[in-house]
Amino acid sequence: MYAVIMAGGKGTRFWPRSREKRPKQLLNIAGRRSMLQQTVARISSLLPPENIIVVAGKYHGEEVRNQLTELPRENIILEPVGRNTAACIGLAALVVQHRQPSAVMVVLPADHLINDESLFLTTVRAAAAMARKKAALVTLGIRPTAPETGYGYIEAGEHVATVQNHAFHQVSSFHEKPDFQRAEQYLATGNFYWNSGMFVWQAKVVLEAIQQYLPGLYADLEKLKSFLGTDELEAGIARVYPDLESISIDYGVMEKAADVLVVPADFGWNDLGSWASMAEIWPKDDQQNVYQGEFMALESHRNVVYSRQRLCVLLGIEDLIVVDTEDVLLVCPVNKAQHLGQILDLMKQRGMEQYL
Amino acid sequence: MYAVIMAGGKGTRFWPRSREKRPKQLLNIAGRRSMLQQTVARISSLLPPENIIVVAGKYHGEEVRNQLTELPRENIILEPVGRNTAACIGLAALVVQHRQPSAVMVVLPADHLINDESLFLTTVRAAAAMARKKAALVTLGIRPTAPETGYGYIEAGEHVATVQNHAFHQVSSFHEKPDFQRAEQYLATGNFYWNSGMFVWQAKVVLEAIQQYLPGLYADLEKLKSFLGTDELEAGIARVYPDLESISIDYGVMEKAADVLVVPADFGWNDLGSWASMAEIWPKDDQQNVYQGEFMALESHRNVVYSRQRLCVLLGIEDLIVVDTEDVLLVCPVNKAQHLGQILDLMKQRGMEQYL
Repeated sequence: MYAVIMAGGKGTRFWPRSREKRPKQLLNIAGRRSMLQQTVARISSLLPPENIIVVAGKYHGEEVRNQLTELPRENIILEPVGRNTAACIGLAALVVQHRQPSAVMVVLPADHLINDESLFLTTVRAAAAMARKKAALVTLGIRPTAPETGYGYIEAGEHVATVQNHAFHQVSSFHEKPDFQRAEQYLATGNFYWNSGMFVWQAKVVLEAIQQYLPGLYADLEKLKSFLGTDELEAGIARVYPDLESISIDYGVMEKAADVLVVPADFGWNDLGSWASMAEIWPKDDQQNVYQGEFMALESHRNVVYSRQRLCVLLGIEDLIVVDTEDVLLVCPVNKAQHLGQILDLMKQRGMEQYL
Repeated sequence: MYAVIMAGGKGTRFWPRSREKRPKQLLNIAGRRSMLQQTVARISSLLPPENIIVVAGKYHGEEVRNQLTELPRENIILEPVGRNTAACIGLAALVVQHRQPSAVMVVLPADHLINDESLFLTTVRAAAAMARKKAALVTLGIRPTAPETGYGYIEAGEHVATVQNHAFHQVSSFHEKPDFQRAEQYLATGNFYWNSGMFVWQAKVVLEAIQQYLPGLYADLEKLKSFLGTDELEAGIARVYPDLESISIDYGVMEKAADVLVVPADFGWNDLGSWASMAEIWPKDDQQNVYQGEFMALESHRNVVYSRQRLCVLLGIEDLIVVDTEDVLLVCPVNKAQHLGQILDLMKQRGMEQYL
């Protein structure tokens, strides 16, 4: 078994704590170690370091290597440009298949939070057993705990098998991020799951699926086959990557493929998609303010405060995000946090690259 | 003529920019020089430095001396504790009278902003001429430009005289800070003026008024007479001051005295009573945000931002005060700024003196 950790995210939603140079997955935003380090440590109970492959942006190569000194250098694959998850997974699957043609690979985003580590591991182990037995694409579906509108949903159909006490269902369909009303319906039905972006399959099987549903991408990726296992791989990637089709594995493959299974998972999962999601993991005062750093509030409720450099004082403030960093201070309402990209676009226009 | 500049304010309403150690009047909050320095410079057109007396808190003595190197050391009088304006003015009047028994003294707060300096000077010169002629207490009344609820009002009565083109009226009464409706009425009548706390009178006349209306305070102040002009004055003040009655000159004297005059003034005045008042003096963007420092706003209106250390970014924020300092970051709505004292009280309770 191999693990492929996708660490290419930009993490702009945690600006100004995260920057182009230091995106979310490279920060210790939810613990003492970075999210990437936590992700690697978590899966290390199942695999030796030689079997853990990290795909990250070239720009972050040095930082990733510094954070993951236990991994062999050739297990850190750097993308010269981001080309979405289908390309990333396809490339990793080629590398895995080259090392071990019959390998099962577990695909994990580097920037998600998981509460119950042992339940996570038993779920992955069961999914790997299932993927070894059956030429299927297995996806981990998180049992929803609220009518979330920020996640895609997986609708589970027929029960296929139970392996190591984990039930596997045929996926009847994938659903895009719903509006609130629809999210409530999904929650009520009981057979809808959050699409976690975690997958388990044989390298061979996912490559066949890419070949079938994204033949152009597959043909381009095949150009890299001759470089696998050589010193030329990096140069090959540099040449091939910019022209690769940029599409997510969900749109490109999962939604079209025939044999897709979902294993419901209950291990407590959070994709930390925005500052607002910190409400679930940071300390909270009795006025529902969550914070990191020194903090004092009077007549203030439900704020999210990150202030490591100085004392943050709120008086009469509600539902705000306050993020204080070395060179930037951000104040915005919790419900506007998803518009942070506008600020970054404006900064690009104004030539304020130093803050990105 | 002498000027007495009252620089004893605590300026807590500009916390965290102002601190116990550096109150508003000692900060360059509205220009390159401190408000105290500006006040001294402004009156210096009328008087030599030897005739300018500054009364400040003992705690700030060194800073005041550093800021006003042009003043003789004995012209800076330090109060060991604050005892309100009647005591401060009484003490200063004793000093002035001792130097020049027939002197007229101009009393000026150290932390007010004045736009039209030359008009200010002609008004003061006219008031001094009036005070020299007549044993009256002259107060400068600011012609209101809005129904302000943060100021006391002076109701002008009969016209008494016009001196150097400035009209002087008998004061018919003083009015406390009104509610909004009443402030609108005051504004409409045309004979109500903002109480600026600026006074002109003969030292002898105000001492007589204190003797008449605050005999206890006067008796205590008299104990200092033998120290005037000696090296013992500071020690004498240290002994006498803590027991002085603490009352404002307005309540204690002006509201009771018979011969009180007001000279309407139009020189553009602002007591900078809170962060909100910065709206009148700081640069403003086209969304009515006022700011000092590096600042960027998107979908944000009518905010007051002080951020000298880092870029402050607002997204979707309205009517907030954001003050960023070395060790404290404050966020509060404009209309809560007058409750800042609650924060400081809470800090005292919690032993957080380093932030006061």
